[in-house]
Amino acid sequence: MVDLLITNAAQILTCARPGVAPPYGGNAQAHLGITEGGVAMDEGRIVEIGPDALKLQAEKTIDAKGGIVMPGFVDCHTHAVFVGSRADEFEERAKGVSYAEIARRGGGIAASMKMLREASDEQLEAAVKRNLDKFLALGTTTIEAKSGYGLSLDDELRSLHALGVQHDVEVVRTCLAAHTVPPEHADNRVEYVRIVCEEILPAVVREGAAEYCDVFLEKGVFSFAEAQQVLVAGKEAGLRGRVHADQFSHCGGARLACRVGAITADHLEFCTREDALAMKKDGVIAVLLPAANYVLDQEQRPPARAMITLGCPVALATDYNPGSSPTQSMWLVLNMACVRFGMSIAETIVAATINAACAAGVQKKVGSLQVGKQADVIVCEPSDYRDLAYYFGTSPVRAVVKRGRQVNG
Amino acid sequence: MVDLLITNAAQILTCARPGVAPPYGGNAQAHLGITEGGVAMDEGRIVEIGPDALKLQAEKTIDAKGGIVMPGFVDCHTHAVFVGSRADEFEERAKGVSYAEIARRGGGIAASMKMLREASDEQLEAAVKRNLDKFLALGTTTIEAKSGYGLSLDDELRSLHALGVQHDVEVVRTCLAAHTVPPEHADNRVEYVRIVCEEILPAVVREGAAEYCDVFLEKGVFSFAEAQQVLVAGKEAGLRGRVHADQFSHCGGARLACRVGAITADHLEFCTREDALAMKKDGVIAVLLPAANYVLDQEQRPPARAMITLGCPVALATDYNPGSSPTQSMWLVLNMACVRFGMSIAETIVAATINAACAAGVQKKVGSLQVGKQADVIVCEPSDYRDLAYYFGTSPVRAVVKRGRQVNG
Repeated sequence: MVDLLITNAAQILTCARPGVAPPYGGNAQAHLGITEGGVAMDEGRIVEIGPDALKLQAEKTIDAKGGIVMPGFVDCHTHAVFVGSRADEFEERAKGVSYAEIARRGGGIAASMKMLREASDEQLEAAVKRNLDKFLALGTTTIEAKSGYGLSLDDELRSLHALGVQHDVEVVRTCLAAHTVPPEHADNRVEYVRIVCEEILPAVVREGAAEYCDVFLEKGVFSFAEAQQVLVAGKEAGLRGRVHADQFSHCGGARLACRVGAITADHLEFCTREDALAMKKDGVIAVLLPAANYVLDQEQRPPARAMITLGCPVALATDYNPGSSPTQSMWLVLNMACVRFGMSIAETIVAATINAACAAGVQKKVGSLQVGKQADVIVCEPSDYRDLAYYFGTSPVRAVVKRGRQVNG
Repeated sequence: MVDLLITNAAQILTCARPGVAPPYGGNAQAHLGITEGGVAMDEGRIVEIGPDALKLQAEKTIDAKGGIVMPGFVDCHTHAVFVGSRADEFEERAKGVSYAEIARRGGGIAASMKMLREASDEQLEAAVKRNLDKFLALGTTTIEAKSGYGLSLDDELRSLHALGVQHDVEVVRTCLAAHTVPPEHADNRVEYVRIVCEEILPAVVREGAAEYCDVFLEKGVFSFAEAQQVLVAGKEAGLRGRVHADQFSHCGGARLACRVGAITADHLEFCTREDALAMKKDGVIAVLLPAANYVLDQEQRPPARAMITLGCPVALATDYNPGSSPTQSMWLVLNMACVRFGMSIAETIVAATINAACAAGVQKKVGSLQVGKQADVIVCEPSDYRDLAYYFGTSPVRAVVKRGRQVNG
């Protein structure tokens, strides 16, 4: 007798390739490992997959009604701790005002910083909880989430602690104190970088408030040298790096990720073929963010096809944030990665599950359906996996299972 | 005692401008007519709006919980009668194969035609019903829907009859027999245009199966002269025109719409300033379709800002169809109209409600919240209307009311 059994699945997308360690690039990026039948779960773990699972007796059953069963999404790049909407800037950008110009006017990250600093701990935690509820309803069962709207020792720690709230969605935390230079240090950026390296990152490690550190390397934000200083300090403190890289210009972000042994380089609109080869060689995962590329209406697109062909594994994420990507839907991200980045539907699903789990460092626990792994499983309405990314603007989720327990649907 | 009362609305978007007949262009395109309080409904109609509504006793109550109350969407351009997915082509296009190339290979409209012709009447009706259920759940309470995958007398009539299925969502029907030349007439397009004009359109009128006729004027589809022939024949038979105009090239579609007194010209990516002025003068509504523009990843955008500035009213629609726009979400359309076409959020809401009602010819009945109008009303989660278009990828709908009765949420 097992705890839970999902029956009547037309397609079970295991996203697993037994015997080959993820992440998957090249042809393997399109390998969904499809089987059919059922998925059996016990004590929070997967115990059987496929036709044999249907032979087991179960306490509870979910009828997939001829739909798809797949791993819960891992959204491996979010900024899920913020308060307040930035709809005003969204309209300004629609009128043609650039992201950089809005930042110069005191909008952008600085606007969210102001709102976050004014919020109480309780308000921050409530905002995070609301976000996590929505992620879960959309089938996202694990997220990576960055601070970065605090930009002071206290407010960065408050942000990371809010992300530690008890919730079904597991949160992998990243300190992004180096998101931008806050207004109070505008005249002395050297001092702010010093505070990040010598005060904030060590404190984050002392309090066990994050596993990763990140930096926004871009013209007008942090330079290559500053970003390297932050990532090296993070590494010395015990935080592995991630990099906001080459989004608006070719600043060497991907190369820096390679140099410091970062787990990912993210955005990558201006990444070159040589960068992609270097990332492949050094095991840096490319995290692409099609929803932000869409909101910013960028003509420039990351070289997703070249990356995959060269064997550089691609992961996908929402980049959920109040400025350039106010969406929490990985479903729309799948569609946008096809439409805007030329990925195949199968490639996007691997990118949003097992490759994304690697990008968040949780691939041993989640990201694929395999016996022994944590039972984070979703049931979807369509019977053909391609319809998951083809139809867009709605969620196909029928049921969400977290650690072997149905939590939604 | 009234039948139904919606209480506790932070913002009621009436989308009405008492004393001024819609559609609204220019500054009026951004006028949401916001009030607060409640909306009272009786015998399917709106009987009171605003703070005074809250003084009425009601049989049933919906608590808007500080959210937004607004008219149900009118989706004024859909192809909602088709069977089968075209996810295969979607992936081909993602790889860079053009829409035109796919059509040459026998895909595109011809692929849907094949599937539709093989479907039984019951299958067609079931497909329409599934579509209408989803529209309703997303807050769309009226749609305009075109045939155009039948492309024979019998299959066009079957399509239009399927669209006449009994459902809460009201369907305004359009005969689009001139969607493309079907394969059996590939060698004699003159004969197919004759069949459309002399056989199909008159039969549609005899059976009362549509109110409008439409034509796809485009290089490689129907020429200006052919399109004019179809629209004139439709007009003589009693069907007012609509035009698929200037989507991939400047073929004179907007001008033809003016010339034949069409109610709308749709798509309009290549519409000029002069075309927009002519449309304004002749009362032709511009129906823009940002989701199709997105799926086709078109760099070319319709001149929405110029249209609005010149006073040419803009309406928005999903263009829901299995080729270039597999979405039913007007929410995403609002967002895409801001991001891709530079519209303000208020302008998109007017475009999707009262202007869209004008584009479907139903503005006297629906499209705005006014005493005496049919009670098609939706309740949404956010408390600031701007958040309706700013957050994207999910639906903010909490409750849907059709003809004064709660049907969802």
